[in-house]
Amino acid sequence: MSLSTSNGASASSHKIYVDGPRGMRVPMRKIHLTDGSDVRVYDTSGLHSDPGVEVDVRQGLPRLRQPWIDARADTSELATPTSAYRRERDGDPALEEIRFAARRAPRRAIAGANVTQMHYARRGDVTPEMEYIAIREGVAPEFVRDEVARGRAIIPANINHPESEPMIIGRNFLVKINANIGNSAISSSIEEEVEKMTWATRWGADTVMDLSTGKNIHETREWILRNSPVPIGTVPIYQALEKVRGKVEELSWEIYRDTLIEQAEQGVDYFTIHAGVLLRYVPLTAKRVTGIVSRGGSILAQWCLLHHQENFLYTHFEEICEIMKAYDVSFSLGDGLRPGSGADANDDAQFAELETLGELTKVAWAHDVQTMIEGPGHVRMHQIKENMERQLAVCQEAPFYTLGPLVTDIAPGYDHITSAIGAAMIGWYGTAMLCYVTPKEHLGLPNKKDVKDGVIAYKIAAHAADLAKGHPRAHDWDDVLSKARFEFRWQDQFELSLDPQTAREFHDETLPAQGAKVAHFCSMCGPHFCSMRISQDVRDYAASLEQIEEGMREKAAEFKQAGGELYVPTS
Amino acid sequence: MSLSTSNGASASSHKIYVDGPRGMRVPMRKIHLTDGSDVRVYDTSGLHSDPGVEVDVRQGLPRLRQPWIDARADTSELATPTSAYRRERDGDPALEEIRFAARRAPRRAIAGANVTQMHYARRGDVTPEMEYIAIREGVAPEFVRDEVARGRAIIPANINHPESEPMIIGRNFLVKINANIGNSAISSSIEEEVEKMTWATRWGADTVMDLSTGKNIHETREWILRNSPVPIGTVPIYQALEKVRGKVEELSWEIYRDTLIEQAEQGVDYFTIHAGVLLRYVPLTAKRVTGIVSRGGSILAQWCLLHHQENFLYTHFEEICEIMKAYDVSFSLGDGLRPGSGADANDDAQFAELETLGELTKVAWAHDVQTMIEGPGHVRMHQIKENMERQLAVCQEAPFYTLGPLVTDIAPGYDHITSAIGAAMIGWYGTAMLCYVTPKEHLGLPNKKDVKDGVIAYKIAAHAADLAKGHPRAHDWDDVLSKARFEFRWQDQFELSLDPQTAREFHDETLPAQGAKVAHFCSMCGPHFCSMRISQDVRDYAASLEQIEEGMREKAAEFKQAGGELYVPTS
Repeated sequence: MSLSTSNGASASSHKIYVDGPRGMRVPMRKIHLTDGSDVRVYDTSGLHSDPGVEVDVRQGLPRLRQPWIDARADTSELATPTSAYRRERDGDPALEEIRFAARRAPRRAIAGANVTQMHYARRGDVTPEMEYIAIREGVAPEFVRDEVARGRAIIPANINHPESEPMIIGRNFLVKINANIGNSAISSSIEEEVEKMTWATRWGADTVMDLSTGKNIHETREWILRNSPVPIGTVPIYQALEKVRGKVEELSWEIYRDTLIEQAEQGVDYFTIHAGVLLRYVPLTAKRVTGIVSRGGSILAQWCLLHHQENFLYTHFEEICEIMKAYDVSFSLGDGLRPGSGADANDDAQFAELETLGELTKVAWAHDVQTMIEGPGHVRMHQIKENMERQLAVCQEAPFYTLGPLVTDIAPGYDHITSAIGAAMIGWYGTAMLCYVTPKEHLGLPNKKDVKDGVIAYKIAAHAADLAKGHPRAHDWDDVLSKARFEFRWQDQFELSLDPQTAREFHDETLPAQGAKVAHFCSMCGPHFCSMRISQDVRDYAASLEQIEEGMREKAAEFKQAGGELYVPTS
Repeated sequence: MSLSTSNGASASSHKIYVDGPRGMRVPMRKIHLTDGSDVRVYDTSGLHSDPGVEVDVRQGLPRLRQPWIDARADTSELATPTSAYRRERDGDPALEEIRFAARRAPRRAIAGANVTQMHYARRGDVTPEMEYIAIREGVAPEFVRDEVARGRAIIPANINHPESEPMIIGRNFLVKINANIGNSAISSSIEEEVEKMTWATRWGADTVMDLSTGKNIHETREWILRNSPVPIGTVPIYQALEKVRGKVEELSWEIYRDTLIEQAEQGVDYFTIHAGVLLRYVPLTAKRVTGIVSRGGSILAQWCLLHHQENFLYTHFEEICEIMKAYDVSFSLGDGLRPGSGADANDDAQFAELETLGELTKVAWAHDVQTMIEGPGHVRMHQIKENMERQLAVCQEAPFYTLGPLVTDIAPGYDHITSAIGAAMIGWYGTAMLCYVTPKEHLGLPNKKDVKDGVIAYKIAAHAADLAKGHPRAHDWDDVLSKARFEFRWQDQFELSLDPQTAREFHDETLPAQGAKVAHFCSMCGPHFCSMRISQDVRDYAASLEQIEEGMREKAAEFKQAGGELYVPTS
């Protein structure tokens, strides 16, 4: 399996590591500018982008967090995996060929222990994960601990995913983005999915969700986890449904429970759980233009209707919390009743479910289980702010994690744009993580180009939100690029952009000559007149005005010193 | 010269004409849906998209508005064009080959007449142009007249561009978009520019600005105007500068004045005029990160500095008004000091110029000259609203026409997206027209693909703004597409989208079979489980609940009628 190892950045940009306590090395990308200065930017791509490291995807990434987990001495290795399904898959010789070979035994909290970052934070412990994040984000470790303790931020960090580089999701940190990948009944192989994960993080995905619904979901996920430098999220009900061959009526708490444990022991960092889809809310969707569009939401709604019973994720929620805290899996409480069109936004069904998610947040926090809340979807601009305000109030400031929202429904093929508009706005209002939408949304499965287009559109949205929120590092990045642009440092402008390769190629299309890369003009105005070039004249003029004023002030001072009397002619 | 005549819409979408008074036929695109209904959408593409009409670009479009102009009897044909430059070009045999042959004599207002739509509106006349617009926008003709009379909307409609289909720019109408085209010293031919204009209007550009700075600007513009169904705007200072071979110091009021008249007699519908760049404002830009980035603004700033005189566009503003009202050219008062980076947004230079534009608006209105105001540029999200609020206050609600704004500067190559975010927001806040930005912005000259990408991104922004403002037609369009999506009417979903061809191609990539176009599933979930399909179950359930309630109500009524006494056991 070969992985992409370049985002088009040239030799003037490279990966560095900032030293932290306990020998930790926090990755960043350092961009060297032609004026001798440099800029460091957040780097999500893991060791895959380090030319000094040969990553063997069959071995997976080094287990960065293992010593920290071991040192806490609150977990132990399991002699056999807990999940019956996993034991069955592990014992199936037919799967030998696709199985990730270098697998280790799973860990679990020792009896009575709670191994969540929230638990440590509330206890007053600053973990190595928090110290790592403090360096990454440029804040104090104690601030990280405090935000996690208050539930305003989460650190998705399953003890069985020690390969991940710690990151944080909360509105007082950089806005994050998630990229969805996953095979389906229609297409895609394990290789493709691992490649998509690496590709997405290369362009800036902060977390990746594996939404596979096709074949060999367990094995695909193992390959992804072992090679992922970012937290991995899943929607366990998808796999549970596959286990009952798509027959919703056969879903049960027992099958779901085994799936949760199976995935928790593989290392999934957060679970989307649609525990807020209550039986009594389902009829509220009957008169919608687009009914229920969340796949997980509709599975649970159908189960409720078929059994005429309350959603088993709701009735078993405390048991789920027990599982979550034994591995430190974070909740991503799913919005199964989110609107599927602008017409359905902010309706009773959506906000009724949100109330329940707020109630469940309190239950999760009583177990010290980290929790974020998922949000819509399809919302017109004037209705976006209400989503954020309600979520903060109802869910006690637990991080919000939204899909878009798309601000119009008339542009299939361009929904990375329709949704980046809504994402930027809701990010500014306070959403902590934005789930990307690719150009293929509503039409088909994203290929590599779509994944990249989606990630870039969302990096734009997240960064625009950081700017609007006044994040100093975000401002610095913009300003240094603007300065490079103004000074015709073309190479610097390319290197500082989210996609250096595309920026360079676009410039080449009109002015391919190497000389144009140092030219003090561009293709817009041509060499004869350039608006940027007159700035020196303006600065000279402003300076001369200042000199005149300075001269006037000096004269005035001299005059004052000399007695300060004027000859005033009398009429 | 061959022109593109398809936007990928199939036979199930075609051009129609809605009959209006005086035999006028107002174009729309009618989309036939498979459920037997249809939707009519605004159509900017002119006769070029009518398969029943053969447009010969060498003859130009029919002169739709000529009878209306003639009937007003306030203009006359000129025996010779007024502009000395034009007479020179017309007499140059070397230009024969590239000259538009079917040229007619220009018209001008008769002595003392004012031929602007604003003048007619203030006089109380509802012109045919206003009636046409009323049908296009779905409002009353009197409302159109009133908005134009108040200066809250403009109808760019030069008497020498009778080929144009009347349209309106104002915040109480659909949000409009402009596409920039134009050759430069570096590249591009007349054919390319005419093709780009037709292409841009095919995808939805409401106006087109010809920003040519290269060779044969006069002749290129003539071809564009004679074939353009939408208003054409220009920045006359660009051509004036070409006439003095790029030497700013040689620019003069006389050369500029001749250029204005040359272009007004060709039919340019609005002029960007940077009359607000005052000498005293120039030093305010000295400490900016990116100085002055407006090409027009920097030309004028340099002229002011070189001559140490006030901007001649400001000092001759009343004379310019006299020219504008003799042809009905609208002002687009240029923001020559707009910020070129987020760091420079909303600064003293920008807002000082805005104050002057407000003052000039009053002068223009005193002449009944239609006026809109240009705005930035590069503005971070949290600073966008202030731009709109100040503009409305300072410029007495004259329409705002903004470039983007870009909400971040770190994504060259994707500035159609960074700016669509800001454009959607400022459109919602009240901007009447959004000037597109293509992916090539800051890097090179847009090709056809870039023009399309820019137009689509801006149609999204404008439509999202219409939705947020509550425009009923915008809501209908979204809802009908959402309904088609929910009911798996794939063909309808494609046809209703902004870019049917791309939507169809994306669907084909994963599910190419024709059968998949009628399948009740998609590639996201596959055939076994589909969230959309469960809706019928939900509706049945909701209906059964209603039946139960209805039954309860009946029983209660019976009980009441029967006497309404309960046996209450006493304890």
